[in-house]
Amino acid sequence: MNFSSKTVENAVLALSSFPGVGQRSALRMVMHLLRRPIEESQMLSKAIIKLKTELQQCKICCNISDTEICELCNSVNRNKQLICVVEDMQDVMAVENTGQFFGLYHVLGGLISPVDGIGPDALTIEHLLKRVQEFPTDEIIIALNANIEGDTTSFYLARKLQPFNIKITTISKGIAVGGELEYADEITLGRSITNRILYGT
Amino acid sequence: MNFSSKTVENAVLALSSFPGVGQRSALRMVMHLLRRPIEESQMLSKAIIKLKTELQQCKICCNISDTEICELCNSVNRNKQLICVVEDMQDVMAVENTGQFFGLYHVLGGLISPVDGIGPDALTIEHLLKRVQEFPTDEIIIALNANIEGDTTSFYLARKLQPFNIKITTISKGIAVGGELEYADEITLGRSITNRILYGT
Repeated sequence: MNFSSKTVENAVLALSSFPGVGQRSALRMVMHLLRRPIEESQMLSKAIIKLKTELQQCKICCNISDTEICELCNSVNRNKQLICVVEDMQDVMAVENTGQFFGLYHVLGGLISPVDGIGPDALTIEHLLKRVQEFPTDEIIIALNANIEGDTTSFYLARKLQPFNIKITTISKGIAVGGELEYADEITLGRSITNRILYGT
Repeated sequence: MNFSSKTVENAVLALSSFPGVGQRSALRMVMHLLRRPIEESQMLSKAIIKLKTELQQCKICCNISDTEICELCNSVNRNKQLICVVEDMQDVMAVENTGQFFGLYHVLGGLISPVDGIGPDALTIEHLLKRVQEFPTDEIIIALNANIEGDTTSFYLARKLQPFNIKITTISKGIAVGGELEYADEITLGRSITNRILYGT
């Protein structure tokens, strides 16, 4: 693109480094900022810097947190014997939004992926093993993506957790609620037949 | 959405004020920033502030500019007797990208739109009239959107410019290059028949 201003060009280049934001969208963002009062730009600018300066990893669950121990791990209303293992903060939010889970989380920070050079050591698996030794735990729910990386990581985790005599479960896979059989792919439909449950539970 | 961190929430809210960016995309942007080195966030943060502190309006064409007179108006390679009137900087860039125009621009800063309360006084029309009195001008090409606001503004501009004895033209409307007749809407196709041109020109 042919920018008449270096300042605009720099802003467009910086904004288009976001995933899914091309130069055209970035330029639209720039035009938006130009139309809005300067306070809005200052707020945005500060919020971006604070992300890197004020956030830390919760010492218990490894989730992103404003404080040393995150709000969830600190809450007295959560069942601390129940841990849901997820990939990242977005998955914590997804599970929280269901309103169906009242335990704590453990955030792995990624999934095992030999192709991308991510081994088990790059994740917070050792931290989880120490955590279950330190705090009494009844059940660990493994809630990872239903793809190769997720399955590999689940398998590895389950094997590592076996010696601790903890109930290990994983979220069910099957057709989506509201989904139609004819549009479900065969692997998903196959899984939901294999893992069928008693009617009414 | 249920954010476990106030810092993340603030950043998501600030980023989702951009047009076309919802909370989910904003959260993806936040996760991206968290994964990248702090220098990138600092660069972005600075670029955003500079937009509001360093940019000004070119004293000649009213386009956004780093300097008092913009690069295009300052260039010795442009035909200063030819002015293309556009709505905003994005349209300047669109025309520049064609590589077919070598004159100067005049940026209106919007289009007349009584529905949105935008009258001629809110635009840089008076500035354009002064400009053509001050600098000798051969031709003014009106290049505005082909909608009601664009047509209204074109009509108003043409009437205001009439006394100055300048050739006034407007960009042609018709089917897009590579477009197929059967998919063109009837108004566009009608216009491109009415405004037919001699074959080969």
